Amino acid sequence: MRLFGFKGSNGYESVGALSKGNADSYIDLCATDPLLPKNLQDMIHSKEIMDRAAAALANVNAVGGKLSAITFKVPIERPGKIVCMGLNYADHAKEGGNARPEYPSFFMRGPSSMTAHLSPILRPKVSDKLDYEAELAFVVGKKVRHLTLDNALDCIAGYSIFNDGSIRDYQRKTTQWTIGKNFDQTGAFGPWLVTPDELPSACHGLNIQSRLNGQIMQNANTKDFLWGVAETIVLISECMTLEPGDVVITGTPAGVGYARTPPVFMKPGDICEIEIESIGILRNSIADE
Amino acid sequence: MRLFGFKGSNGYESVGALSKGNADSYIDLCATDPLLPKNLQDMIHSKEIMDRAAAALANVNAVGGKLSAITFKVPIERPGKIVCMGLNYADHAKEGGNARPEYPSFFMRGPSSMTAHLSPILRPKVSDKLDYEAELAFVVGKKVRHLTLDNALDCIAGYSIFNDGSIRDYQRKTTQWTIGKNFDQTGAFGPWLVTPDELPSACHGLNIQSRLNGQIMQNANTKDFLWGVAETIVLISECMTLEPGDVVITGTPAGVGYARTPPVFMKPGDICEIEIESIGILRNSIADE
Repeated sequence: MRLFGFKGSNGYESVGALSKGNADSYIDLCATDPLLPKNLQDMIHSKEIMDRAAAALANVNAVGGKLSAITFKVPIERPGKIVCMGLNYADHAKEGGNARPEYPSFFMRGPSSMTAHLSPILRPKVSDKLDYEAELAFVVGKKVRHLTLDNALDCIAGYSIFNDGSIRDYQRKTTQWTIGKNFDQTGAFGPWLVTPDELPSACHGLNIQSRLNGQIMQNANTKDFLWGVAETIVLISECMTLEPGDVVITGTPAGVGYARTPPVFMKPGDICEIEIESIGILRNSIADE
Repeated sequence: MRLFGFKGSNGYESVGALSKGNADSYIDLCATDPLLPKNLQDMIHSKEIMDRAAAALANVNAVGGKLSAITFKVPIERPGKIVCMGLNYADHAKEGGNARPEYPSFFMRGPSSMTAHLSPILRPKVSDKLDYEAELAFVVGKKVRHLTLDNALDCIAGYSIFNDGSIRDYQRKTTQWTIGKNFDQTGAFGPWLVTPDELPSACHGLNIQSRLNGQIMQNANTKDFLWGVAETIVLISECMTLEPGDVVITGTPAGVGYARTPPVFMKPGDICEIEIESIGILRNSIADE
């Protein structure tokens, strides 16, 4: 399933799933089965609820509509934590002047930094150094700690796409990147959560690309991760409990704007797309705060 | 008011307030006024609810008990974000080999890293480099952005104490401190939230101290902040929206364990106390994970 939260008219909110075999329409899962929770975050922790969602999607009388008529929400609006990896592709570490790392760089984003598919990414008042970062995201569906390579993938509720939008001058004001990663509505997340059964194990071997106004800026493959999805989960869960709704974003490949000659930063009117093979395209315009 | 969430017997949960003039007893606000929300996070965003809480505390028929009979909860259990400052005292920056900074170092903790007053701080399986950090905390009560020095303090619902427990070897595996600040139950928070009317403006001029097994380890005063509470809010809100329930912790003074000769780390059976003048004492034992 390809699941997303959405808003309709008059304040209506629900969870939708892409229709099978029809790329521009969706099934409204909550309208089809009123017992389903009205947001995705309340669905993913329960196999029983996810099974009900699958049944609603397969229902011959399912209620639905056109994707163009809805407003996408961020798939998980209030994650307990958003754990971000830096430098998970050797080529991106190199372009930033960082040695090939022996351990990933972790930092966190807060919920207020996110923006949904087709909603704008905001360039803040205080900086014009707004950069894109194409990343594979996964969402945790179970409360887990101390996972191993053998069982790590079992905790994943689904995969998605994240544009880890960064305000580069703030990111580099000190050694800690966090402030530059937490400006309002700079981190795009979506368009949907894809359940693991629809993707290769650990999302291995998927092309990942960012495009700015149609021009390819980053072009890589998840097989080039320094730490794959399972290894990442093992490392994080060695330190902390992962909980349902927690989001992990897995780092970006080479080609970011600030490392180019001359540097490229996003400006109002630009369109940034992140595409990951078999998942979809996350598309955002850029607007001034 | 001095407000805290607590658990009683048989799964009972409520919000309490310290009794006026009686340091070892409390009023059960939700038992006194059943219309009050059952957790503190749902109270602080509303002046009307906070006024009801004050009325319940002043009620001559208020229901209460002894503090020794309850289990403290973390004051805010699911903050949207926990924004942490590093190097906000010049002496601590110096002991860590850092220059006096021109901008604060920000990082974030997740909710799973917190532990309550009188609950243990956990030393993880994978490291024995568990260190304490005495910090003033404040909790945001309004949704705000772009505050100024003149109005910054208006967003504060209350002040508390945080022990920003750190796993030093993980903190220093890369340039990013986040992973060493996010081990389960390493960040103690409490014992209560003190409303600003009971404290000096911006908590200026308060002694702050950590004690390990009764020995004073850190001993400073909030007048030595490089960035005071109002300045901190201005800097954060320049970048991101602060929301009700967000927690900000304001950095630690000199005297941490890893910078001592020889280094001091906390071990099972130790008792760590953080005291801030006019707020109280946050006390935790140390236990192995």
